Amino acid sequence: MDHRQIQHPSLVIDEQQARANIRWMADKARNAGVRFRPHFKTHQSAAVGEWFRDEGVDRITVSSYSMARYFAEHGWSDITLAFPLNLRELAEIEQLASTIQLGVLVDSVIAVLALAERTQAPLNVWIKLDTGYGRAGVRWDQTQQLIDLASRITQTDHLRFAGLLTHNGQAYHVQGEHAIRAIYQESTTRMLSARTALHEAGFADVRLSTGDTPCCSVVDDFLGVDEIRPGNFVYYDLMQTAIGSCPDERVAAVVACPVVGVYPERLELILYGGAVHLSKESIELDGRPVYGCLAEMDGDRIAAIRRDAPVISLSQEHGKVHLPPDLLSSLRVGDLAYVVPVHSCLAVSCLQD
Amino acid sequence: MDHRQIQHPSLVIDEQQARANIRWMADKARNAGVRFRPHFKTHQSAAVGEWFRDEGVDRITVSSYSMARYFAEHGWSDITLAFPLNLRELAEIEQLASTIQLGVLVDSVIAVLALAERTQAPLNVWIKLDTGYGRAGVRWDQTQQLIDLASRITQTDHLRFAGLLTHNGQAYHVQGEHAIRAIYQESTTRMLSARTALHEAGFADVRLSTGDTPCCSVVDDFLGVDEIRPGNFVYYDLMQTAIGSCPDERVAAVVACPVVGVYPERLELILYGGAVHLSKESIELDGRPVYGCLAEMDGDRIAAIRRDAPVISLSQEHGKVHLPPDLLSSLRVGDLAYVVPVHSCLAVSCLQD
Repeated sequence: MDHRQIQHPSLVIDEQQARANIRWMADKARNAGVRFRPHFKTHQSAAVGEWFRDEGVDRITVSSYSMARYFAEHGWSDITLAFPLNLRELAEIEQLASTIQLGVLVDSVIAVLALAERTQAPLNVWIKLDTGYGRAGVRWDQTQQLIDLASRITQTDHLRFAGLLTHNGQAYHVQGEHAIRAIYQESTTRMLSARTALHEAGFADVRLSTGDTPCCSVVDDFLGVDEIRPGNFVYYDLMQTAIGSCPDERVAAVVACPVVGVYPERLELILYGGAVHLSKESIELDGRPVYGCLAEMDGDRIAAIRRDAPVISLSQEHGKVHLPPDLLSSLRVGDLAYVVPVHSCLAVSCLQD
Repeated sequence: MDHRQIQHPSLVIDEQQARANIRWMADKARNAGVRFRPHFKTHQSAAVGEWFRDEGVDRITVSSYSMARYFAEHGWSDITLAFPLNLRELAEIEQLASTIQLGVLVDSVIAVLALAERTQAPLNVWIKLDTGYGRAGVRWDQTQQLIDLASRITQTDHLRFAGLLTHNGQAYHVQGEHAIRAIYQESTTRMLSARTALHEAGFADVRLSTGDTPCCSVVDDFLGVDEIRPGNFVYYDLMQTAIGSCPDERVAAVVACPVVGVYPERLELILYGGAVHLSKESIELDGRPVYGCLAEMDGDRIAAIRRDAPVISLSQEHGKVHLPPDLLSSLRVGDLAYVVPVHSCLAVSCLQD
């Protein structure tokens, strides 16, 4: 990327590192004998999708109907829409299911009834399982509800019961490999027990799909699970380094922001780069909320993450950075500063418009 | 708006209330004898811009070059780009300045030199003044720097020194009319003293422009100021009600979100409506962060803001709402729930893509 051409807040991807991240995760899945169905909500880009194809990926995950349609239009023919079924888009979802292998998620009778009554195209239907995150899904121990949903799905000709799918969002609230592994262990044990209950109720073929970048980054042996769906790992970000899912070297995305103000007396910069570019996702660093950190760059590669140069506040278009004198003296109005975002999925989504 | 057609998170505007808000602020400016140059970054919509034109508005404020160009294309010919001059877009900015009356902001010698050396089109140049917010701008008491910048601007033929412009962002960090008025008083006193210093240095015509919705909402007498630039007041939002700049009745925008999960055992809903739709802007309510609250609607009108039904967490596409049994029992998967956003400017920006 020719950085001299950058005029406004822009995503800069280290393609070499992103490709290495993809290869690493694809290899990991292959070695563990699990299906790799990466989540494309992080990059939302057909071009980056090709980097996955280069590593043999042919099945993907998305989190909205519009993303599913976008990637279908770019040649992806096996897509799981890993978001609780939105009944208000059912006609569009069915239309798409008539052209590709589409998977959807349900956790309520009302959703299964809508699929049975209002669609005809073949659909892979996963039961969303809540293994401790407490967001969407049937709780792993609500056996009767699981059996009821599985029965209703299998009783409908055009629906194929795919299995149980979970997302360990709770892994984002811990720190360190040990804690992440413990989350994975607990979640997988719960999935396996839910599957056992379904087996005992006569459902023979129940696949297990698990997701999230923290767990998939630190776990190597996915024993018992059939499929993994991490997404963020393609770029990682400041939050992942804070959780402990990756070293700084794996971070592959920054936001290039024009410097529009330099204030030496208070050791601050103002960037053209605000909440509408970086998102207001924050992590705590030294006891205060931080919305990103400056990076030292070597071309498109992040040479160092400068945690001593945090983005300390964001308005709609402004970002305020507090930074040490050495960095401050190297930057002038009109230069670019590079921000490692807290959450690359959200920053990418902001910058794609 | 026909809500039956809503399929995904969508902005719903109460046009009647928004128009009433515009009329109220336009009248207030007229009665106070100040110029009304509303900030269009809140709505970013040519259609809503027409509602302002209906109230006699012919000068506007924006916060990016792309917004300036968009509104210029929609017939607005007097625009202030109220963001520190981005030197990386200077050629585009000059191009625009050759077709409309364009105002820009500077707070550094480097920016004025760039204007002098790299542009030829006539430009109105405001000095951005920091009257206590501590974001961008020359501090009100840095007299020598103010005089230096004003001299450099006036010495350049095609630049017109417009005056001093401030934004009282600090008003977002207080609560109640009394505290907001105190901010306004302090900020305006500082602007006036900076102007006096410029007058004494021989600069005769120095206009004062002030902004922000909290101050412009509670202050009626803008004595000494020439221009006001509020923006958010067109829709207001949950944050403005928390600051005390408006009663609930003035809030004119909600985000309609499909309900995709109902969890009676934990009194929670999952909405299709996440960080990419509402933004992660939060306020504290009862000691915890809240990303919005459900509204009871009467068509496009907000009948009541339900602070007992807060959005308590946001993922990329999911929103989680905690709500009382009466509301919970009225909502089913497939229904719409309506979220009053914390910050309407950011939610609108998210939903415009």
